Amino acid sequence: MIEHPLPPEGRVRAVVEAVAPCIDGGRFAAKRVLGEPLVVEADCFADGHDAVAARLLWRAADEAVWRETPMAPVGNDRWRASFVPDRLGRHVYTVTAWVDQFLSWRHDFARRVDAEDLRVAALAGAALIEAAAGRAPVPERDRLAAWAAALRGATAPAALRAIALDEALGELAASYPDRRFAATYPVELPLVVDRERARFSTWYELFPRSTASEPGRQGTFRDLEARLPYVAQMGFDVLYLPPIHPIGRERRKGRNNAVAAAAGDVGSPWAIGAAEGGHTAIHPQLGTLEDFRRLVAAAREHGLELALDIAFQCAPDHPYVAAHPEWFRHRPDGSVQYAENPPKQYQDIYPFDFESADWRGLWLELASVIEFWLAQGVAIFRVDNPHTKAFPFWEWAIERVKRRHPEAIFLAEAFTRPKVMHHLAKLGFTQSYTYFAWRNTKAELTAYFTELAHGPGREYFRPNVWPNTPDILTEYLQFGGRPAFMIRLVLAATLAASYGIYGPAFELVERTAREPGSEEYLDSEKYEIRHWDLARADSLAGFIGRVNRARRENPALRSDRSLAFVPVDNDRLICYLKSTPDGANTVLTVVNLDPHHVQAGWVELDLAALGLDASAPYQMHELLSGARYLWSGARNYVSLDPARAPAHVFRLRRRVRTERDFDYFL
Amino acid sequence: MIEHPLPPEGRVRAVVEAVAPCIDGGRFAAKRVLGEPLVVEADCFADGHDAVAARLLWRAADEAVWRETPMAPVGNDRWRASFVPDRLGRHVYTVTAWVDQFLSWRHDFARRVDAEDLRVAALAGAALIEAAAGRAPVPERDRLAAWAAALRGATAPAALRAIALDEALGELAASYPDRRFAATYPVELPLVVDRERARFSTWYELFPRSTASEPGRQGTFRDLEARLPYVAQMGFDVLYLPPIHPIGRERRKGRNNAVAAAAGDVGSPWAIGAAEGGHTAIHPQLGTLEDFRRLVAAAREHGLELALDIAFQCAPDHPYVAAHPEWFRHRPDGSVQYAENPPKQYQDIYPFDFESADWRGLWLELASVIEFWLAQGVAIFRVDNPHTKAFPFWEWAIERVKRRHPEAIFLAEAFTRPKVMHHLAKLGFTQSYTYFAWRNTKAELTAYFTELAHGPGREYFRPNVWPNTPDILTEYLQFGGRPAFMIRLVLAATLAASYGIYGPAFELVERTAREPGSEEYLDSEKYEIRHWDLARADSLAGFIGRVNRARRENPALRSDRSLAFVPVDNDRLICYLKSTPDGANTVLTVVNLDPHHVQAGWVELDLAALGLDASAPYQMHELLSGARYLWSGARNYVSLDPARAPAHVFRLRRRVRTERDFDYFL
Repeated sequence: MIEHPLPPEGRVRAVVEAVAPCIDGGRFAAKRVLGEPLVVEADCFADGHDAVAARLLWRAADEAVWRETPMAPVGNDRWRASFVPDRLGRHVYTVTAWVDQFLSWRHDFARRVDAEDLRVAALAGAALIEAAAGRAPVPERDRLAAWAAALRGATAPAALRAIALDEALGELAASYPDRRFAATYPVELPLVVDRERARFSTWYELFPRSTASEPGRQGTFRDLEARLPYVAQMGFDVLYLPPIHPIGRERRKGRNNAVAAAAGDVGSPWAIGAAEGGHTAIHPQLGTLEDFRRLVAAAREHGLELALDIAFQCAPDHPYVAAHPEWFRHRPDGSVQYAENPPKQYQDIYPFDFESADWRGLWLELASVIEFWLAQGVAIFRVDNPHTKAFPFWEWAIERVKRRHPEAIFLAEAFTRPKVMHHLAKLGFTQSYTYFAWRNTKAELTAYFTELAHGPGREYFRPNVWPNTPDILTEYLQFGGRPAFMIRLVLAATLAASYGIYGPAFELVERTAREPGSEEYLDSEKYEIRHWDLARADSLAGFIGRVNRARRENPALRSDRSLAFVPVDNDRLICYLKSTPDGANTVLTVVNLDPHHVQAGWVELDLAALGLDASAPYQMHELLSGARYLWSGARNYVSLDPARAPAHVFRLRRRVRTERDFDYFL
Repeated sequence: MIEHPLPPEGRVRAVVEAVAPCIDGGRFAAKRVLGEPLVVEADCFADGHDAVAARLLWRAADEAVWRETPMAPVGNDRWRASFVPDRLGRHVYTVTAWVDQFLSWRHDFARRVDAEDLRVAALAGAALIEAAAGRAPVPERDRLAAWAAALRGATAPAALRAIALDEALGELAASYPDRRFAATYPVELPLVVDRERARFSTWYELFPRSTASEPGRQGTFRDLEARLPYVAQMGFDVLYLPPIHPIGRERRKGRNNAVAAAAGDVGSPWAIGAAEGGHTAIHPQLGTLEDFRRLVAAAREHGLELALDIAFQCAPDHPYVAAHPEWFRHRPDGSVQYAENPPKQYQDIYPFDFESADWRGLWLELASVIEFWLAQGVAIFRVDNPHTKAFPFWEWAIERVKRRHPEAIFLAEAFTRPKVMHHLAKLGFTQSYTYFAWRNTKAELTAYFTELAHGPGREYFRPNVWPNTPDILTEYLQFGGRPAFMIRLVLAATLAASYGIYGPAFELVERTAREPGSEEYLDSEKYEIRHWDLARADSLAGFIGRVNRARRENPALRSDRSLAFVPVDNDRLICYLKSTPDGANTVLTVVNLDPHHVQAGWVELDLAALGLDASAPYQMHELLSGARYLWSGARNYVSLDPARAPAHVFRLRRRVRTERDFDYFL
C-alpha cells in the first residue's frame, strides 16, 4: 500500500493557475525590451465566497528580493498587473494570491443589517485590524490600533458602519495582509530584457569586397568606410557583413557555384578558414584588425551598428581541422566527413561534430569566437544556419555571452521547419528570419503576420523579415520589376518592426536568376566581386530612405504587437494598422500587391476603435509623398498605381479644435 | 559575475516539446477509463537532417519500469502513439526521442550513387550495426553481427545496396538504438484510469423517505428495496440517495424552507447530525446499517449501484459541534459561526473551518467518513458543494481514497464559476455537474457541448448533466409541459455520456415552482415527505426506459469525444452525431427544442466523413419508436411534433450488398 501523507500546510485555500506569459511551463523566457511593460495575467481564486487578493512578484534574476505589484481582477477569475524592468538581462516573475480575511470582513460588513449582528461583526473586524497593525511598521501600526479601538468602542449601527467602512483606513489595513496561507505559483517564470534594437532594427547587408569605388579592384574596410554615408542616408541602423575571415583555398568553389574555382576566383566568404587563420582572423585583402576596429567606430559615427556573421563551419584548410581533428566526424577511410545531404555533397565545407567526445572543448572555443568579436566592439551577430548545430550549445552560448553582454543581439538565420525555428527563438535567439520572402498574397501575408503578431510565439519569436538575401531572389522579385521591389520593401518595413535588405542588389533592382526556377542570383556576390553603380537613376535608395524615415519617426512601426489588418474590398490591396498603446501614433499602410496594374478599393476603418468621430473629417498624412488627404467616415477610396507609388503609408492625424475655432490635425 | 557552467551532457541533440495531453504542465492528471486508449502526441525533432526516433514511455504509478511504444510522425514534427492501461489507478507517461545514427545512415545510404562513396558508407554502417549488436540479446546479436560482416565483405554497389537495405535486418538493428544522448521530457505526466462507469453512467436520484407504498407513512430502506425494479426498468445504473443521516433538530427548517419547523416537520436531509449521530450514522426512521447493506446488495442484483451524498457540513446539534469545537469558526460572542452570505443567514448549517489549527484532524475525520461508506459497499459519491471546502483537502482525500479504492467515483456538485468547476475536476473529481440545466437554445447547447467535448477540459472534466435536481426546476420545464421534459431528457441522454434525473418528480412531470421566478419546487421533498403515483398514465417512465436502452445498446453514446453538430436549417431543431472510433456505431440525434410547435427542416450530413455512398440509400433506425427510414443523399427532411415525439434518435445502418444481390442494412 502506497502511503499518502498529509501536505505540510493544508490551509492554502487560494489557487494560482495559468500564469501568462508562460513559455513551455517556464522552461523558456519571454522577451521584452527596456521600458516596455510586461503584462502578467493569472487565474486566482479560492473556495467559497471569501475575498481573494493577488500580487505580481518580480525581480532581476540576480536580485534576492521580490518587488511586488498588486493585481486587479479583470473578470472570470482572471487577474492582471504589469511591471517595467529597469535594466537589461534576465528577470523572473511569478504570482501569489491569498484568501484575505480582512477584505472578506469588510465586504460582508457593508451588507449586514441586524444591529446585534453588526456589533459582533465589528469585534471580529477589530481583531483582524489589530492583526494587521501587528504586521505594520510604527506610524501605521498606531493608526490601525486606534481604528480597532474605535470599532470596539462603538455600538450604534450607524456609528459602527461609519467607522468600519472608512476607505483610507481600510486600504491601509489591506496593505498589511495575512499571507501565511498564500498560494504562490510554483514556477519562477523567466523574462529576458533586451535593448530597443532587439525589437526595432533596420538592417543592410553588403559584401565589403564589392565596395571599391572603381571596378576591377577588391574592396577593403577603408572602401567600406567611404560607403557608410550612403547606407546611413537610406536610414539603416544595422550594417551586416557576411564573414570577413580568410577564405579556404582547398576545394574552393568558382563563380556561380562552379565545383572548381578558376585562377583568381575569390571563393565564398562562408568557406571559412585558411592558412592565414580562422574565425577570429580577418581576410588579409579586407584589412587588419585595427582597420576593422576603425570601421566599427566610423559606422557608429554614422548611426550604424556593425553586425557580423557567425558561421560555425570550416573550409578544409581551416586551422581547426589539423589542430582539433576530434571536433570533426571522420569516415571509415580516415577522411573528414564533409557536409552532405545525399546524393548532394558539399565537399568544401566541414561541419563540426556536436557529438564529439570533446564537445566541451568545442563549445568553449566557439563561444570564445563570439566573445572575441564582442571585444572588438561588435554586439550584433547574424548566425548562419543555427539549426544545423546542436540546440543545447546555443542555449548555453547565448546565455553565457548575454550574462556579460546583455546588449548582445543574435539573429537566427534558420529557414527551416516551423517548430525548429520556434525552438531556436526559445533557446535565446533575439531575432529570427521568417518565411516572409515566400508570402506574397493578401491571404498569405494576413495569416502569417497575424500568427507572428498574435500567436503564442509573440512572446519569444521576434521576426526580422527580408525581401531578399544573397541566397534568396524570389520569383516575385524576378518577374515583378521595380514596383515589386518597392512593394516588398514597404511590406517588410511596415509589417515588421525589424527588417533588412541585401544591397546594393536590392536598391539597384538586381533580379536575374542564375537559371530558370532558381532563387540564386546570376553572378552572385557569394562567389565573385561585383561593382555596383550606386548613382543609377532607377535606384530605390531615395525611396528606401523615405520608408525608413517613416519608421524612425513613427513609434507605431517600432513594435509588432499592435498589428491589425483592415478590410479592403480588393484582394490585390492589403491594408493594416499599427498603433502605440496609447493610440497617440497610428499608421495605416495600404499596399498594392499587384506590381503590374493599378488597383483600387474601399478601405473600411473601425472608427470607434480608433476613437474617431464618424461625422468629422480626419487627416491621412501620406509619409512617402508628403501628401495630406482629408478622409471622413469609415469607408474611403484608395487607388494605387504600381508604376508610380504602389503603397501609401499614412499617419492618421486627428482633428483638434482650438478655442479660437481654428482646426488643425495632430 | 554569475557563473555559467557547462551542462552535464551537451550531446543531447533531440528535443521533446509540447507533450499532450498535459494539464497545467503535468500538475494534474488526464482521465481515461479501463480499455480506452490514451493517445499521446509530442513535438520531437533535432538539429540538421539526421533521423529522429521517439518512444512513448508509460507505466502504472507504482511500477518501477517503463513500458515503451514506438511513436510515429504525423507531420510538422508531431509524433503520436497510444497505450491502453490494463488496470485501474494512477499511471504516468512521458516521451523520449533521440537522433538515430543507424536510421540516418540507412536513409542516406539509399540515396548514395557513387561506388566508392557507397563502399565507405557501408563500412560506417557496419560499425553502427555492430554497435546495435552489442546492445541486443544473444540470438539477435548474432544475426546483426553476421549482417555487419556481410556488409564489410561486399564491394559491388548492387550487392552493397541489397545487403544494406534489408528491411527485416534494418528493423532489427533499429530496435536496439543508441539512446545515450536521448532527450526525455522532464515531466512524468499523470493519468488516472477509472472504470467505465466514470465515463458512462445513468443516474436516478430519489428521496428514500418518499418511497412508502401508501401515503402518510415515511419510507424506509425496505420500501426503497421494493422500488428498485421500477428504477432498474427505466434503465438507470446509479441510484443516488440524498443524505441518509440523522437530521438536526436545532433550528430545523419547515416545509417550503420555512424558517421555523412545525411539529412533525421532517427537516432537510442536508442538515446533517443530531443526538443519534452524524455522517456515519443512519437516520433511525430509514433503517439500520444492516438494512442499508441489504439495500446495497439488492440494488446490485437489479444492476443498480448505490451512490451516497457527501455533504460536509453540520446541523447545530451534530455531535462534532460539541466534540470538536476547534473545527468550527466562532464569533466574538462565543457562538459558532453559521453559514452566511450577508445579509442572508443559514443558521441551521455550520460549515467546517478549513483554516482550523487542527486541519489535520478534520481532514482525517472527513476522509474516514468516505472510507466508512466504502466499507459498506458504496463506491460512488455525489459531493455536495465541494467548492465551499478547501481545495487541497479534496485533492488529498480523493487521492487517498482512490489508492485503496481505484473504483471510487466522485461527482462534484459545484454550480459555480467556470474556473472553480474546472479546478475541482483537475483536483480529482471523477465527474462534474454542468451548466446544462440553463443551456436551452441551439446556439447555447452547441457552444457549451462543443466546449465540453473538444475544449481543453475534455482531458479531465467529465460532464454529468441533469435536466432537474431537487434544487433546480428550470423555467423551461416549468412552462414547457410534458414535451419540455422529453426534450431535456433526450438532450441530456444523448449529448452526454453521463446524465441523471431527480425522480419521480421528473418522470411525473412535476413542474410547479414554489413562487414565480423561483427554481425551487413547490412542496419540495427537501423539506417534506411526498407520495408519488408512479402508475399515472402521463408518466415518462416508459419513454425514459427507451432512451436509456438506446444508450446501453449504442457504444457511440457512451463517450463524449466524438460529438459533432450537424447543420439543420431550422434554429429550433438541433442535430448531432456520435460515433465509435471505428465508425461501426453511429447515432444521429435530432431534437425539436420548441416544446409547443411542430418544427421541420433539412438535416445536412457529411456523407464522405461518414463513409456513405452519395448515390445509395442508407437506413436510419429510429431507436425510440423502432421505425426505420430510408435516407439518401446529404440532405434529408425531418419534422418533429413535440406533442407526439419531440426527438429522433437514429442509429445509422449502412447498406451491405451480399453476393446473392440481396441488400440489408447493418
